[in-house]
Amino acid sequence: MDLSQPKPELLDRFAAIVGENHVLRDAADLAPRLVEGRGLYKGASRMLLKPGSTEEVAAIMKLASETGTPIVPQTGNTGLVGGQTPRETGGDLILSLERMNRIRDVDPVANVLVAEGGAILADVQKAADAVDRLFPLSLGSEGSCRIGGNLSTNAGGTAVLAYGNMRQLCLGLEVVLPTGEIWNGLRRLKKDNTGYDLRDLFIGAEGTLGVITGAVLKLFPRPAGHKVAFAGVNSPTDALALFGLASNLCGGALTGFELMPRIGVEFTSRNIAGVRDPLPDAHPWYVLIDISTSDTAETAEVMIQSLLEQGIEAGLVRDAVIASSLAQEKALWHMRESLSDAQKPEGGSIKHDVSVPVSKIPAFMEEAAQAVLAAIPGARICAFGHLGDGNIHYNISQPVGADKAAFLARWREINGIVHGIVLAAGGSISAEHGIGQLKRDELAHIRSPIEMELMYRIKKAFDPAGIMNPGKVVALP
Amino acid sequence: MDLSQPKPELLDRFAAIVGENHVLRDAADLAPRLVEGRGLYKGASRMLLKPGSTEEVAAIMKLASETGTPIVPQTGNTGLVGGQTPRETGGDLILSLERMNRIRDVDPVANVLVAEGGAILADVQKAADAVDRLFPLSLGSEGSCRIGGNLSTNAGGTAVLAYGNMRQLCLGLEVVLPTGEIWNGLRRLKKDNTGYDLRDLFIGAEGTLGVITGAVLKLFPRPAGHKVAFAGVNSPTDALALFGLASNLCGGALTGFELMPRIGVEFTSRNIAGVRDPLPDAHPWYVLIDISTSDTAETAEVMIQSLLEQGIEAGLVRDAVIASSLAQEKALWHMRESLSDAQKPEGGSIKHDVSVPVSKIPAFMEEAAQAVLAAIPGARICAFGHLGDGNIHYNISQPVGADKAAFLARWREINGIVHGIVLAAGGSISAEHGIGQLKRDELAHIRSPIEMELMYRIKKAFDPAGIMNPGKVVALP
Repeated sequence: MDLSQPKPELLDRFAAIVGENHVLRDAADLAPRLVEGRGLYKGASRMLLKPGSTEEVAAIMKLASETGTPIVPQTGNTGLVGGQTPRETGGDLILSLERMNRIRDVDPVANVLVAEGGAILADVQKAADAVDRLFPLSLGSEGSCRIGGNLSTNAGGTAVLAYGNMRQLCLGLEVVLPTGEIWNGLRRLKKDNTGYDLRDLFIGAEGTLGVITGAVLKLFPRPAGHKVAFAGVNSPTDALALFGLASNLCGGALTGFELMPRIGVEFTSRNIAGVRDPLPDAHPWYVLIDISTSDTAETAEVMIQSLLEQGIEAGLVRDAVIASSLAQEKALWHMRESLSDAQKPEGGSIKHDVSVPVSKIPAFMEEAAQAVLAAIPGARICAFGHLGDGNIHYNISQPVGADKAAFLARWREINGIVHGIVLAAGGSISAEHGIGQLKRDELAHIRSPIEMELMYRIKKAFDPAGIMNPGKVVALP
Repeated sequence: MDLSQPKPELLDRFAAIVGENHVLRDAADLAPRLVEGRGLYKGASRMLLKPGSTEEVAAIMKLASETGTPIVPQTGNTGLVGGQTPRETGGDLILSLERMNRIRDVDPVANVLVAEGGAILADVQKAADAVDRLFPLSLGSEGSCRIGGNLSTNAGGTAVLAYGNMRQLCLGLEVVLPTGEIWNGLRRLKKDNTGYDLRDLFIGAEGTLGVITGAVLKLFPRPAGHKVAFAGVNSPTDALALFGLASNLCGGALTGFELMPRIGVEFTSRNIAGVRDPLPDAHPWYVLIDISTSDTAETAEVMIQSLLEQGIEAGLVRDAVIASSLAQEKALWHMRESLSDAQKPEGGSIKHDVSVPVSKIPAFMEEAAQAVLAAIPGARICAFGHLGDGNIHYNISQPVGADKAAFLARWREINGIVHGIVLAAGGSISAEHGIGQLKRDELAHIRSPIEMELMYRIKKAFDPAGIMNPGKVVALP
């Protein structure tokens, strides 16, 4: 008998907490919960528990703590670094928040919404919309990702430029600790300087310090005006200069500034149904500019035209189109959001989620391209992303006709090259996706010993039994 | 011989780290560093050390750690809760960052500025201004408070509405740990999801987890347009409704929305040189509205006029004036910023720095006024502050002709009454000033045992020897 596996009677005790009809035990039922989207990790587990309340989550963690049973919290299972996937050992139980999907309260006067950890992001957006408010977090996976996961990974997305990451969108949390105790930090306050910042410690901890069961989220007035433009530019240098113009001209009204290369337009036009090149001629690079104004719709119109005129005068914009209908706006954003899917038919893709200081993006792009092409001649670099945040999804499609497996076998080697350039520029190897399993060992390698030591001390202080999503983010030495 | 006092030879070892001419030992020299602005605390200390570099701070902390010597970090000594004041025991040494006042770097393209912990806030503002950028933190004490203290207290001020607290204005930190190790977290990244959020743990920790010696701060484009208006309103309820209009109309362009009562206009007109009532008739309440626009100066003009017109139409604004010159803008803000000083000639003042969810401000104001006047008939309530953030400085001047000492003796009793109403509304007993010594025991009383336990664990994990600003924020059980 394998001692690392939970015994049947222990599984029954866990099941009794939530009721047998809220448990998955069957291998076929469990299978989709053991893999993540990119197929990088495949874990094992005997049981998935679906608690219906914070108290049930607390009872699960209390029993886990008493019996030393590792627990992996899971929400939408859309994470990209294996943080939500149980380990291969089979000893981990999965705690799914899918039944805890309620919106507990919406207050449009105070501009707050209280959601459970299992609430789907799109449902939160809709609940805000219903009271004429905006919840700005927006991701490709918003139809299936859930608030607890968004918070645990400090999710970013396309509206970070104006509204910030998930950390900036959250006022308070309810967390079940590894011991089963409940921390009620569901505060609705914009200002509260009363002791250590527990909230921001749980946000971004990827479920290794506790289970986020509820959150107070910030709402915003819905913009009165909205305009989207798509412009061809010569280079990342020109795109950055245009971003400078846009920041000065639009301030907080600049809600998106996305960069993409010519090959991104080719990939999406070729591989995504309904996408076509919005401009008549080809350009080396493109930017998608999104402006939202609060006072009037006309301000957005004036602002975007003025920005493009200034960009053309300064020689930064080669050609541009402004969406003239909601359908056109959606089409431009659809092209941008399809960039990941558009790479799949092109063969293997080695991916990076990096950030550098905004001013260093052009130099990073140039240096990384040289190094990658020296290592893999013919590699097709599809580097795109949130220019305004310094966050580039540096994806590399295999050379045409190359062997996919042989190309993908060089994942770590190419990561090493790209991350080396990122780190030399003072950048981050994980701008928005997190650490999970994928970058855990690399994190320990690139960070100073004292920084890792502080993280270990926090992990031990919060999870002395080591049962809370073990093996993710940090591995205790 | 008192064992709690550092021995002369130990003092000499500390002095040798920074050099004797960067040490204060004399009682007369030390005296002003042992008291804080309101005179609530008076501590004792044998020595103040002025290190000139991060390495010297590290050497001090290493020696302190080895010898069990308590260290109190001090910057501008403008804190209002005794966090920067040594204890009365006389065993604490003061570590002043006043010599570490350099701006290490300014990068207007990346919109970042790197300052040392001892840099004066006004100097940081000026350095940003010199490259046509804005550093938005603005406080009454900006001419003397320093960045390390601003970060350690997560300072707020008058621009929080649009730009956030100090926490939102900081990208990275350099911190000397209680052990003397240096954590270099001076990152300049807008997005970086790589492990636990150490930065936000040090911010707001009031120097109890380490000494902040450097910080990367965010800069913003300087607004193109700026308008300030002052409006008379009937009640906090109407002020809140006007705030709702302003939020919807102006979005991120609404950079200030301050509430003050009639008695505040009377106190400032009477007691502050050069202040006069800006409106011809008296009104029960007033709001100061500040709008900054990024595109053009005209937008600010149009926006504020449109807001006041809508406010008058809706019956929310009784009368209003728009500042038509920089001098008039400054005069309006000067009245608001003089409200604290204006209370001094009126006798004793019992103070609170509270926040409640924005929508609950009118109910809080009414309930607190009833309770305070029931306890002290004739008390003159001068409750003012950052309405848009839910943060009210709930100050109470003594009844005319009352005995000052007898009035002030009721400080704790009145705190208990007001804080009880605040807590029942889900509010905070320290919106922006922090905990320090003043609210330490009250914090332990109002927070759940598990929340205090988590704070104790963090304190122990970071400062096992208990030498880092001991007795502030949390007292280990």
